[in-house]
Amino acid sequence: MVFENNKHASIVLLITCSDRKGLIAAVTVFIRERNGNIINLEQYVDPNENQFFMRVEWNLSGFEIGVDLFEKRFQEDIAIPFEMTWSLHTSDERPRMAIFVSKYSHCLFDILSRYQAGEWRVDIPLIISNHPDLESAAKNIGIDFHCIPVTNKNKAEQEKKELALLNEHNIELIVLARYMQIISDDFIQHYPNRMINIHHSFLPAFPGAKPYHSAYERGVKIIGVTTHYATAELDGGPIIEQDVVSVSHADQVEDFVRKGRDLEKVVLSRAIWRHLKRKILVFNNRTILFD
Amino acid sequence: MVFENNKHASIVLLITCSDRKGLIAAVTVFIRERNGNIINLEQYVDPNENQFFMRVEWNLSGFEIGVDLFEKRFQEDIAIPFEMTWSLHTSDERPRMAIFVSKYSHCLFDILSRYQAGEWRVDIPLIISNHPDLESAAKNIGIDFHCIPVTNKNKAEQEKKELALLNEHNIELIVLARYMQIISDDFIQHYPNRMINIHHSFLPAFPGAKPYHSAYERGVKIIGVTTHYATAELDGGPIIEQDVVSVSHADQVEDFVRKGRDLEKVVLSRAIWRHLKRKILVFNNRTILFD
Amino acid sequence: MVFENNKHASIVLLITCSDRKGLIAAVTVFIRERNGNIINLEQYVDPNENQFFMRVEWNLSGFEIGVDLFEKRFQEDIAIPFEMTWSLHTSDERPRMAIFVSKYSHCLFDILSRYQAGEWRVDIPLIISNHPDLESAAKNIGIDFHCIPVTNKNKAEQEKKELALLNEHNIELIVLARYMQIISDDFIQHYPNRMINIHHSFLPAFPGAKPYHSAYERGVKIIGVTTHYATAELDGGPIIEQDVVSVSHADQVEDFVRKGRDLEKVVLSRAIWRHLKRKILVFNNRTILFD
Amino acid sequence: MVFENNKHASIVLLITCSDRKGLIAAVTVFIRERNGNIINLEQYVDPNENQFFMRVEWNLSGFEIGVDLFEKRFQEDIAIPFEMTWSLHTSDERPRMAIFVSKYSHCLFDILSRYQAGEWRVDIPLIISNHPDLESAAKNIGIDFHCIPVTNKNKAEQEKKELALLNEHNIELIVLARYMQIISDDFIQHYPNRMINIHHSFLPAFPGAKPYHSAYERGVKIIGVTTHYATAELDGGPIIEQDVVSVSHADQVEDFVRKGRDLEKVVLSRAIWRHLKRKILVFNNRTILFD
Repeated sequence: MVFENNKHASIVLLITCSDRKGLIAAVTVFIRERNGNIINLEQYVDPNENQFFMRVEWNLSGFEIGVDLFEKRFQEDIAIPFEMTWSLHTSDERPRMAIFVSKYSHCLFDILSRYQAGEWRVDIPLIISNHPDLESAAKNIGIDFHCIPVTNKNKAEQEKKELALLNEHNIELIVLARYMQIISDDFIQHYPNRMINIHHSFLPAFPGAKPYHSAYERGVKIIGVTTHYATAELDGGPIIEQDVVSVSHADQVEDFVRKGRDLEKVVLSRAIWRHLKRKILVFNNRTILFD
Repeated sequence: MVFENNKHASIVLLITCSDRKGLIAAVTVFIRERNGNIINLEQYVDPNENQFFMRVEWNLSGFEIGVDLFEKRFQEDIAIPFEMTWSLHTSDERPRMAIFVSKYSHCLFDILSRYQAGEWRVDIPLIISNHPDLESAAKNIGIDFHCIPVTNKNKAEQEKKELALLNEHNIELIVLARYMQIISDDFIQHYPNRMINIHHSFLPAFPGAKPYHSAYERGVKIIGVTTHYATAELDGGPIIEQDVVSVSHADQVEDFVRKGRDLEKVVLSRAIWRHLKRKILVFNNRTILFD
Repeated sequence: MVFENNKHASIVLLITCSDRKGLIAAVTVFIRERNGNIINLEQYVDPNENQFFMRVEWNLSGFEIGVDLFEKRFQEDIAIPFEMTWSLHTSDERPRMAIFVSKYSHCLFDILSRYQAGEWRVDIPLIISNHPDLESAAKNIGIDFHCIPVTNKNKAEQEKKELALLNEHNIELIVLARYMQIISDDFIQHYPNRMINIHHSFLPAFPGAKPYHSAYERGVKIIGVTTHYATAELDGGPIIEQDVVSVSHADQVEDFVRKGRDLEKVVLSRAIWRHLKRKILVFNNRTILFD
Repeated sequence: MVFENNKHASIVLLITCSDRKGLIAAVTVFIRERNGNIINLEQYVDPNENQFFMRVEWNLSGFEIGVDLFEKRFQEDIAIPFEMTWSLHTSDERPRMAIFVSKYSHCLFDILSRYQAGEWRVDIPLIISNHPDLESAAKNIGIDFHCIPVTNKNKAEQEKKELALLNEHNIELIVLARYMQIISDDFIQHYPNRMINIHHSFLPAFPGAKPYHSAYERGVKIIGVTTHYATAELDGGPIIEQDVVSVSHADQVEDFVRKGRDLEKVVLSRAIWRHLKRKILVFNNRTILFD
């Protein structure tokens, strides 16, 4: 990583470690001594796990140390003594994101609309689908589209192709935009906390297939959607965001689908935004969300 | 039932039957012919069950038929031919309601506050608890309070006492205001769709004990509460109302409890209000809620 | 209008008139006598204005009267005696809708996504903008795009061009999808209750320009958006839908814009959907919304 | 202030000053050097005002300095050099709160229910009303109740009596629980940012009298409530919390009142809770709310 000369750019440092006295002092003094001006600091201590989490952001402008040196010195002086897990990012980054999609277009179209409007700092070089239906939407804006149909029989082989494409495009983040296909544990382990799924229920209610049908059957008065990082347990990964909408007895399954669709696309995009802003840490299958 | 001479009073007719042509015409013509002025009519046809539901309300003033005659004629002319299940109510009624409570005071205090302020048209002659803690709150406003501790061993016997008290006080509606005791199927069958429970989760997620703890464990970002009519299946009865509140990673179980408490009392009271206003029908373990 | 032979099609009748006894009976008997099976009936009586509103929908299949005859007979037998204002629609209709847009793309892209996905029964033959920026989005899916820049000086002349285009395309409904240009009263009067605007505040708070800036200045904790039918009074027309999202002290104006954008597009589309479903009546600058 | 020997007690330090480099480092090092274990730190920099805000909380247990010395040393070593405004609190405090009320009971009853249940760490020695109606509610739980009727003519004189009572009871925080009487600027200046009001509208919409009536007139689809610190400008003070509830065309003013009542009491209590937890700072008529 090279710190660019963007006056408005900032550096984000994400840290987690066991809690102990002096953590915040140590980090903020380290930044202060290199003339960093902190513009945002959020921390959280999980009292049950005695685990410390912090996101601190400071102006790149005026910061008196190159990134290589920063990484070396921070690692030696702070991270090793405190046994920290940490990562460093700059607001100038453009993470590379791939989208997996099937036939439903609403989440994909919503993401592409934001992409075209420049809402996010991201590159989207690759869309993978198990159906050909949405190819033209991808091609229209110059994104590589690969149709890779998956059956129980060919899944291992097809996932290899997918992984090759992801590697080739240097993908950091995968978004499952209503991708209707269960992904193997093996595949998932290549993208730990880097594969965002949208599930169309208020988890843990109604995991798995056809949650709107199940919600209708149960006669609920509110339906919801959940974004989470995909893990080996189906719809059991760390939850990022959830949101809900009211339904009435008069709403049929197709009304649940219609109302839910608007939630799905908005909540999925909120989770993507938060991931791209480096505002999520994961610990013990739970997310810490920074504002 | 005698129609009183209250100028502003109204009559509410609740109907359900298999759907067929001419239902609304038949009922509204019947009311029209007796000079009734309809002030509200809501109907719903369940397209899957082909079942018809209606709530129609008209002014008592000017209505040209006594209630006994109404019931006889409506039954013969309309209800029998259309095979309707129906009930008749007037806005002048004061249903008699009992409250079951344990140690948590927030739902009880909220109900009693509304009762004292005259928010609802209801009489509350009886509070039953398995603990003595809240006795003085009941006595202060002149409501009979009976402490009936329940163990697995004495449950059948104690429930008999409770049923006797309910009969003695001529109770129509029971409210379980965070009553922490499982009620027997036998008891429940005495009050079908007349026993409102508040469960402190967003059902069907987290039924049973300690839902806030389970929600915390799962790392959800929204918690909820559910009111439903108690049935033999624990937390499985027809849902009346649900509502939710956001939580963050920084909220501990005690914060879930604090935030949930406010929801519980408000949502329980909303369900009571709706029941008292005769705005609920139940069919196939689902509620039809009229506005 | 010709009733088509679509088995699943239905007829929607919208009625308003002064309230009096026998209205519902008269209409439902009229439908019953022609063998109509009502699948939905909603009515409302405004108690302050003594005004009656009804939306009734029945299956086209089996209905024993052609539309011309229906209109003639209903007008003579029911509408004239009761002094009704009414309109008749079928679920087979494809209303023709035009979009006015400026530079912000999010509402337009959202509408076009739904249009392409077939979410709504509508035709969109025309997009008018005072800027050229979004032309390619329109052209890509074959919609006529006309760039008509407007200044205070040329407004009358340009609006004439716009009206000519609208007439030429036989437009029934206009959607102002963040169109940043005040429309003349004269123009608005051509489309009474047929021009839907989205305003990015929780009206009546913050009408006019830069509502997010004003909301930030005031230090509100919730921001909102409002859809309404455009009237001569700026942001004063009958409100269709509103929705809100929480903000915190840490949210800057650009965060208000980001959060508000998602609300704007979803709430605008909800209002369009409701209009297209013939679920809105307007009276005294207020909307009656049917479910 | 004396730091008590409560093992679970914590110290809260609230700070605001102009932003500059090294603020967080200076404060956290100061705490670290006295062996303080920070359990929560939240900070915010207002980028427009270049103003820094911080709430930091650490365990009292093990903290190696008495409070008098802390105050002296912190003032000299940190606060003066950085030109800070600051305050120190412990979780063991019991702030003294007075309630002003008129005839509506719902907010008062809600506060007293929480008080009796021990939800908050607070003492409520005094209730003042301009009407006698709610006296018994206060007396029942042993709170002094003073009925002080106010007219335009006697306002100055009556407010003097009120101030005397507030001083006598050593009141720190005043809650206006639907107190229907405009308070003089002079009075308000005695309790800057220490007098919480609940206004029954979504401010800045509908300030002043009868907001539910105005909301009905305007035909809004959502109503709201707002808590704020009272200032000289009526309903213009810094907003603490807001919340909303949906209404429909069928809801009359009395329905707005019914729905709003539930919001009012819950949102007012949330603001009180947050104030008592020392989670609010005020700057330029805006609140910074810590989680």
